[in-house]
Amino acid sequence: MAIQQISFKLPEYKRGFHLITNEVINQLSNLPQTGILHLFIQHTSAGLCINENADPTLRTDLEYVFNKLAPENDPNYLHIYEGADDMPAHIKSIITGNQISIPITNGKLKLGTWQGIYLCEFRNSGGNRKMVATVIS
Amino acid sequence: MAIQQISFKLPEYKRGFHLITNEVINQLSNLPQTGILHLFIQHTSAGLCINENADPTLRTDLEYVFNKLAPENDPNYLHIYEGADDMPAHIKSIITGNQISIPITNGKLKLGTWQGIYLCEFRNSGGNRKMVATVIS
Amino acid sequence: MAIQQISFKLPEYKRGFHLITNEVINQLSNLPQTGILHLFIQHTSAGLCINENADPTLRTDLEYVFNKLAPENDPNYLHIYEGADDMPAHIKSIITGNQISIPITNGKLKLGTWQGIYLCEFRNSGGNRKMVATVIS
Repeated sequence: MAIQQISFKLPEYKRGFHLITNEVINQLSNLPQTGILHLFIQHTSAGLCINENADPTLRTDLEYVFNKLAPENDPNYLHIYEGADDMPAHIKSIITGNQISIPITNGKLKLGTWQGIYLCEFRNSGGNRKMVATVIS
Repeated sequence: MAIQQISFKLPEYKRGFHLITNEVINQLSNLPQTGILHLFIQHTSAGLCINENADPTLRTDLEYVFNKLAPENDPNYLHIYEGADDMPAHIKSIITGNQISIPITNGKLKLGTWQGIYLCEFRNSGGNRKMVATVIS
Repeated sequence: MAIQQISFKLPEYKRGFHLITNEVINQLSNLPQTGILHLFIQHTSAGLCINENADPTLRTDLEYVFNKLAPENDPNYLHIYEGADDMPAHIKSIITGNQISIPITNGKLKLGTWQGIYLCEFRNSGGNRKMVATVIS
């Protein structure tokens, strides 16, 4: 039994949903036989989720739908001094969450066939997002 | 300290919110005195959540509300070739998430009095969903 | 390697989003050097999330937005006998989730600069909410 932890930064991504499965795996050398990977993004205007890893149009649709769930420029928003994309980004981050955890089996992430890890970048210019990966085994 | 992990398939459920607390517990023999149960569904069009375990009308309302949050047949969707229920299912799966983790205390899941584990089946015909249960103790 | 677990009750909060980072930390003596904190709220009409810890107007906006996502008094709701705030509270609890997990690094929660832990109280009179904190190290 052991806990291993690393911090790393993602490259800067533009606003939208981005597959980062390979970037995450590349940070993790020697996964244990059995365990849990916990991923945490240290921000409140971006999120993490797991979703379909194949069709790029799905990502366009996700961006569209999240903009409907948390629209910009609602005249009732009070928290507006960081830009029109900021308050919606906080809301979207709560909807997706900022942590995911994935089983590790036989030394690999036990993702389903169609599952990928997504960075959900909700700011127009979110910069290099900071991540913490913790492996429990 | 130990990690135990099993994979199993759920029976096929129709679209909707379904209590699976007992089915999950039946898969887990000999829970440890203290720990965490991590449940993971290996799909992107179904989810897991914890909610009220008593009133069946709540489940009908949840299905109704999720259909409002992610409606079918939005003419703006691009990812449409898997059926009208597919893109909404991906969105709903992100809203609920596909993982939950529950404390284990004195050899039992430490759910609140009114808490149950739900399979959120968002496809019309989702089939037998694959689950991974990992117990950390 | 060890697992430590405590249960505690939060003070009663009114409906809304409330920062509880310090209350949580005060419950946790001697965090390990490296690990994971798992927080679980044993209820189905309240939630936990991580979001921006600075501007109080953000919390007002979150309350506003969640009321739009899950409005009260929808005539289609069937689960109405516990009050107009109840069914929306169940929905909101699924959107936020009722569990969060946070990395522990160098004996401290590795929250980002602007991250705080929120109790999301979705009932008008939710009472003292029961929490379970589990530390894996």
